[in-house]
Amino acid sequence: MITKPRGFKAAGMACGIKRSGKPDLALIVSEVPATAAAVFTSNQYKAAPILISMQQIKSGRCRAIIANAGNANCGTGKRGMADAKHMVLETARALCIDPRQVLITSTGSIGKFLPMNKIIPGIRALSKKLSKAGGRMAARAILTTDTRAKEIAVKVGGFTVSGIAKGSGMIHPNLAPSTGSGHATMHAFITTDAKIDRGLLQKLLKQAVEKSFNMITVDQCQSTNDCVFALANGMSGKRVTGNAIRKFSKALDFVCIHLAKEIARDGEGATQLIEVRVTGARNEKEARIAARAIAGSDLLKCAIYGRDYNLGRVLAAVGASKAKINPNKIKADIKFGRNLSFVICDLGMGRSGAVAWGCDMTEGYIKINARYHT
Amino acid sequence: MITKPRGFKAAGMACGIKRSGKPDLALIVSEVPATAAAVFTSNQYKAAPILISMQQIKSGRCRAIIANAGNANCGTGKRGMADAKHMVLETARALCIDPRQVLITSTGSIGKFLPMNKIIPGIRALSKKLSKAGGRMAARAILTTDTRAKEIAVKVGGFTVSGIAKGSGMIHPNLAPSTGSGHATMHAFITTDAKIDRGLLQKLLKQAVEKSFNMITVDQCQSTNDCVFALANGMSGKRVTGNAIRKFSKALDFVCIHLAKEIARDGEGATQLIEVRVTGARNEKEARIAARAIAGSDLLKCAIYGRDYNLGRVLAAVGASKAKINPNKIKADIKFGRNLSFVICDLGMGRSGAVAWGCDMTEGYIKINARYHT
Repeated sequence: MITKPRGFKAAGMACGIKRSGKPDLALIVSEVPATAAAVFTSNQYKAAPILISMQQIKSGRCRAIIANAGNANCGTGKRGMADAKHMVLETARALCIDPRQVLITSTGSIGKFLPMNKIIPGIRALSKKLSKAGGRMAARAILTTDTRAKEIAVKVGGFTVSGIAKGSGMIHPNLAPSTGSGHATMHAFITTDAKIDRGLLQKLLKQAVEKSFNMITVDQCQSTNDCVFALANGMSGKRVTGNAIRKFSKALDFVCIHLAKEIARDGEGATQLIEVRVTGARNEKEARIAARAIAGSDLLKCAIYGRDYNLGRVLAAVGASKAKINPNKIKADIKFGRNLSFVICDLGMGRSGAVAWGCDMTEGYIKINARYHT
Repeated sequence: MITKPRGFKAAGMACGIKRSGKPDLALIVSEVPATAAAVFTSNQYKAAPILISMQQIKSGRCRAIIANAGNANCGTGKRGMADAKHMVLETARALCIDPRQVLITSTGSIGKFLPMNKIIPGIRALSKKLSKAGGRMAARAILTTDTRAKEIAVKVGGFTVSGIAKGSGMIHPNLAPSTGSGHATMHAFITTDAKIDRGLLQKLLKQAVEKSFNMITVDQCQSTNDCVFALANGMSGKRVTGNAIRKFSKALDFVCIHLAKEIARDGEGATQLIEVRVTGARNEKEARIAARAIAGSDLLKCAIYGRDYNLGRVLAAVGASKAKINPNKIKADIKFGRNLSFVICDLGMGRSGAVAWGCDMTEGYIKINARYHT
């Protein structure tokens, strides 16, 4: 799907980072330099590839994304930084492109050095495998504890917006443009053949992220490696100006919300997606805080797993949050579905609302996280 | 233990609130009016008994604490308030004391009305059972999902300070003096025969709570019913002035820290206590934030259950917190013990430190909370 827009190719492979032998190295390439935008984790403890990509994105132009899974290259000090740079240079060399046009990211265990003896030959091999069909394999090669690939593409008004994502545990993103940095992480890569100014792309990406990835939580643990990259190569010839801005923005929102929900739905050990709708907040900020506080409550997540209509846990979660409430005005409800439950909470304080997504909490979460050894 | 100080009697019984038939109603009484201090949950969604006790404590004098388990009397509106007042009045009537000298608290399911037809006869029966030996039963009658009673008493310099507590799930207290409030909750009741001014007792209680109950977390879910009550009846004749202030303060800290650790150790489904020591913070506030952020990380708690030396999860948790860190200066370590593990984290930013307590996260937590029906 990531290769749906004109001019994008991709490849994925198992280079040997994961002991399981599953795909662990992905490369996404645009035929021509693309306008690039990105948001990164606001965790202060940022992984080396995040620090490198925060530098790289400054050029606003990008042709390639190199991403590995199975090792986060985080907490690896100077050697980690050198390894990340080496990956960037090797990718540029293999593709014969400017190294400043390569974005990099990693996910997996924290505190271990990358097996560069496997990754460097992997990058060379990947650069020869690039194809339209390779998008599928790239989507698989970025996964860690995910149970399935996450892909989407939408075509509107002459251009295509597509994306792939990964994420299952250590999910509570607070993504911001180049500011402020587990084992898992969320990654999303967006490609489009629309032609768009860099500033506008960055603005629309940030808006889309605010209502998608920044509204999901699996375990309230913010990763050191979260990032979203967007590349717009303009090869459709369709300019994002005037009326097209709204169309593009809607497509980008759709792609980001779809991928964010897929991450929450595939939360470690989860059996269902939980959609939390908060209304009646004093302002949007408080609506967002309340919605994610509810979605993040371990007690509520366990109750939903047990199909226990436990409104007390909804009310306790909002009451403990920084969203202002009045106990006499607040109302809540839970609707159980098979793979999707809804939690509705009207604060009765104002006219603002927000939607957050999470998942139920099961024995599976414990099993995965007590066993996933560093 | 709660009856160790001179002039205190207690009783506990099963009045029929809990389906299990376990003890669920406790009464603690001082022979003479005692100086009283209290701190309450800062959850905005406060239970009726908390709202009543916040009023009652204003007199600064108290002779009795009536507490029930199995029903939190929270989210019960006007009827809940009337029920809580009724309990206070009935307790005062049965003991022939001023109703303003009765504190009340409840713990258990949220959103259900109290079975007053069981509680009122229960209060009458309890008032006739009061004894020194009844302290044991009172300690059992305040429990919910706890696996054991939590009691302590210390004797220093002519007076005794003792306490009982309950708490196992929905534990992430943020207790504050009468300012702005699941199923479970933490309660602690402190009795002492020391003679102390009200203002000083309130001040020393707040200090003790800051380094004990406000530093524990089981599931990052703050309850609607958390409270700590302290009664000082002066019957030892020992005045807390001059040098005795430090002695009393140390005894109070010891009692509160012991009970807080007992709550964390008995966290729902837990197999071990986790002690988190943060050093090198810029200030005490950040040290406290960092310590409880580490203790609260679901991922780290699962890792410790699995005995996985996963420093990445420690670093990610601190990095995502509001404590300022420098990735190049931070250091962490984990020491595994049989029933107690230590997590040590030196931020390398300054000279402040803090200690927090939590517990590991196991399948037991999920089982309890997916099954504990409202």
